[in-house]
Amino acid sequence: MADGADIIDFSSNINPLGPPAGLKEVLIKSYDELISYPDIKYRELRENISAYLGCHSDEVMTGNGALEIINNVSLLFKRVVVFTPCFIEYIKRPEILGREVVRLRLDNDFKIDLGELNKALKEGDLLILGNPNNPTAKRIPEDMLYKIQSITKERNAFLLLDEAFYEFCPFDYDSIKLFHNAQNVCIIRAATKFFALPGIRLGYAYAKGDFVKRYNEIESPWSVNSFANAAARNIFKDVRYIENTREYIKKEREFLLTELSGIDYLKVFDSQVNFILIKLLKYDEDILFDKFLKNGILIRKASSFEGLDKSYIRIAVKDHDSNKRIVNCFKECV
Amino acid sequence: MADGADIIDFSSNINPLGPPAGLKEVLIKSYDELISYPDIKYRELRENISAYLGCHSDEVMTGNGALEIINNVSLLFKRVVVFTPCFIEYIKRPEILGREVVRLRLDNDFKIDLGELNKALKEGDLLILGNPNNPTAKRIPEDMLYKIQSITKERNAFLLLDEAFYEFCPFDYDSIKLFHNAQNVCIIRAATKFFALPGIRLGYAYAKGDFVKRYNEIESPWSVNSFANAAARNIFKDVRYIENTREYIKKEREFLLTELSGIDYLKVFDSQVNFILIKLLKYDEDILFDKFLKNGILIRKASSFEGLDKSYIRIAVKDHDSNKRIVNCFKECV
Repeated sequence: MADGADIIDFSSNINPLGPPAGLKEVLIKSYDELISYPDIKYRELRENISAYLGCHSDEVMTGNGALEIINNVSLLFKRVVVFTPCFIEYIKRPEILGREVVRLRLDNDFKIDLGELNKALKEGDLLILGNPNNPTAKRIPEDMLYKIQSITKERNAFLLLDEAFYEFCPFDYDSIKLFHNAQNVCIIRAATKFFALPGIRLGYAYAKGDFVKRYNEIESPWSVNSFANAAARNIFKDVRYIENTREYIKKEREFLLTELSGIDYLKVFDSQVNFILIKLLKYDEDILFDKFLKNGILIRKASSFEGLDKSYIRIAVKDHDSNKRIVNCFKECV
Repeated sequence: MADGADIIDFSSNINPLGPPAGLKEVLIKSYDELISYPDIKYRELRENISAYLGCHSDEVMTGNGALEIINNVSLLFKRVVVFTPCFIEYIKRPEILGREVVRLRLDNDFKIDLGELNKALKEGDLLILGNPNNPTAKRIPEDMLYKIQSITKERNAFLLLDEAFYEFCPFDYDSIKLFHNAQNVCIIRAATKFFALPGIRLGYAYAKGDFVKRYNEIESPWSVNSFANAAARNIFKDVRYIENTREYIKKEREFLLTELSGIDYLKVFDSQVNFILIKLLKYDEDILFDKFLKNGILIRKASSFEGLDKSYIRIAVKDHDSNKRIVNCFKECV
């Protein structure tokens, strides 16, 4: 068995290229900012984020990771509607806050059933959708997203799109542009996954100014730390890093999808992002988890996602050598 | 009028000596930890905190600053009782979470009236007290604190002590030792004020294991960033820095209390901490704020604290030169 240091982590969906070069120097330079409270209005941070998102700084919300934004937005509504399987915190955070959570099921292809949505969604509800969705790795097609937003609008409900993985996807549309006139949409993005910075805790979101005002009233003061604030001076401007990552992930995703599709005991779902959901036609997640771990590879068991059972696993798209190793492991370890 | 860079900030109660030397190197060394999620159980962090607090690591709670702990603990109770004037977030965070907040008044000497507490506190309530209290600068005497805890215990209520300023005070007692057998007490401390790190967002608290378990169930995952985690390797071990700060603040606090007590339009309340509450016997906070700002000094208007009016201001204990400057300003600017 491989020891801890040797283990390749396919369970965590982080950019395998690491953070942008130059970030370290920017953070070191910001050291003295630690001794002041973060600007309670995050003026500089909002400017940097709005320049990246292509919106006005009054349309930017911030949080201690995407998770705090999910938490705070949930506080503003009484009832939450989700489609399972989804990121577990769409259910857990609202429930902890005492909100009712209505679970609908994605269809057999992990698509949203508009009929189900139409039946379940009520006035004043918050609909939370991952786009792309974790763990299903599916981005909602533009026309479908448009229909979903229309339904939420008709019902006087609100749509929260969690796009923490946005930059990994093909840019067929930008939901911030798509909904730049919509009053009932909030779109979360984050530094965590794409910029490989889960430790820095920088989440941000787009919404129209009136909603941002409501959000700011309930946000905990100083929740974004000074290093996260400083990082935003650097990461969004590194166009080459952003392009390189997108190309790299696309190539490696295609490599994994092609190689894994040829393995007879796997049903590999298509992916538009940096992770892949797999159904095991033989064995179960526990057997695979143990076999892979013995070979130095950590995979994600997927039965912890409501709506999936032990026949599912999720793997990240990593660097080419690691990806070759996991392909070999699928072929030879089991 | 002084320009922005020249202004001495007496409104923010941060250790004037700055963070411990050596911290910068520890943070730089931790840079690569940014690319991993913080340990969801904060094992290393809890060990470092528990060694400092003198408790077991299972008795340590963590948060994105003391504020997140106040927030999370409030979530665990239906009704909150506070004594005003107090830190505004003891009222604001529970209300945002939909909790009922009962406000009692401190007496004319800003002491807790046990009779009032006895009348108001009900089964299952959360009592939040600052110790020392902001803005009144008073630490609760040991015998009084003991009585308060007895009352909360009798009522099956819970006591949350916010001791974010603990290290600045004379160590006449340590409430963690005092209540090491109490099941209904949680004691917050924080890196923010004493270690001069408001930008790093490191809050922590002590409670018995059963309560810590309840807290962990509702805590947002990864809310403490990787630099805050790394800082805890350094700051708590710097015994000389801790002693120097305590002596420095004691001397400067006494200097300010003595000098200001001789000024006829001020009623200066005694302080055991690194800030001082002052009642203006002439003028009001707006007049003083403007006059002082014109002389390069920022003071804290205190009417934003429920229970105080425009005749109160709060000032921090800062470095000796700054303290001399504010004393002169009280004597000459007004």
